[in-house]
Amino acid sequence: METAERLIRSTQQLLWERGYVGTSPKAIQAAAEAGQGSMYHHFSGKAELAKAAIERSGAELRAAVEEQFAGPGTATDRITRYLERDREVLKGCRIGRLTADPEVMADPVLRAPVADLFRWLRDRLAEIIAEGKRSGEYPDRLDPEQTAATIAAVLQGGYVLARAAADEEPFEQAVQGMIELLRGVAR
Amino acid sequence: METAERLIRSTQQLLWERGYVGTSPKAIQAAAEAGQGSMYHHFSGKAELAKAAIERSGAELRAAVEEQFAGPGTATDRITRYLERDREVLKGCRIGRLTADPEVMADPVLRAPVADLFRWLRDRLAEIIAEGKRSGEYPDRLDPEQTAATIAAVLQGGYVLARAAADEEPFEQAVQGMIELLRGVAR
Repeated sequence: METAERLIRSTQQLLWERGYVGTSPKAIQAAAEAGQGSMYHHFSGKAELAKAAIERSGAELRAAVEEQFAGPGTATDRITRYLERDREVLKGCRIGRLTADPEVMADPVLRAPVADLFRWLRDRLAEIIAEGKRSGEYPDRLDPEQTAATIAAVLQGGYVLARAAADEEPFEQAVQGMIELLRGVAR
Repeated sequence: METAERLIRSTQQLLWERGYVGTSPKAIQAAAEAGQGSMYHHFSGKAELAKAAIERSGAELRAAVEEQFAGPGTATDRITRYLERDREVLKGCRIGRLTADPEVMADPVLRAPVADLFRWLRDRLAEIIAEGKRSGEYPDRLDPEQTAATIAAVLQGGYVLARAAADEEPFEQAVQGMIELLRGVAR
């Protein structure tokens, strides 16, 4: 694997485990088995490398989500498949956790790929809910944008509850509760 | 105000703004206008002070939540009042954000008050939903524990979406979507 690629993948992993503030250039170099000169040859610094790593993680998450949305079934089926996919719950969301990082949030360049991922996710979920309304699965009063935000929030908040408890159970409960509420409003 | 109290309040504020990793003993001392000797007279170090600050924030949040739950109305009314209360959305949850902090999560003493708050919140929400079932407001199939976890998760995830967007809107949408789903299953 090329050095730039190793640097990006190591940064993805370190951001997930330690956050931005807790990730030093030295730690990235050690994880990527790259020298300091090599890192600064490819990237202007930790911020540019973090931007590339967050964008990469965002692209990987989009691809995984599209796969779950693409399958057959009703809107509720497709959303359920997305909600129930295997996750490393106790590690939290690679992208969502960055919103707790003051330095990431304060830097518009680093926040942009985080904002883009969730904007995209809410739009995709809203499309699926709108399809469910058109097919008669969901009632007219269901607001696609609001419901999409609720579904995206349940996952992100489920991670928070699970990490607080050091137990996956509250994540699973939050997800199953969401699925039941969706089934409850579906015809 | 006494020094120990100033130290706790300053730590609460700094944990909210910068997280645990980003909060130095020096920053706490400066914010509390306390000397290093004074801080170590009252607390064994940053960890013990952070524990006291997280416990204090947890107690304040519980009191605020109990106030919203205590009022009149149906279960949905009481949960809606809780969901809609004024919040500093873009700052995130003082307690929930700590779950993204690897050092807080790795230390059982610091994680305990975070775990306790969310355990308590989910139990209280589950009680209210169970009351709603007994009164005939909610159908028998609604699982109180699952639905409680979903509601708690929507708030925590709403903060994540709002911070990602640097805009309160997705938080408001997630909350309103949750209220609509609850109304949708209520009789």
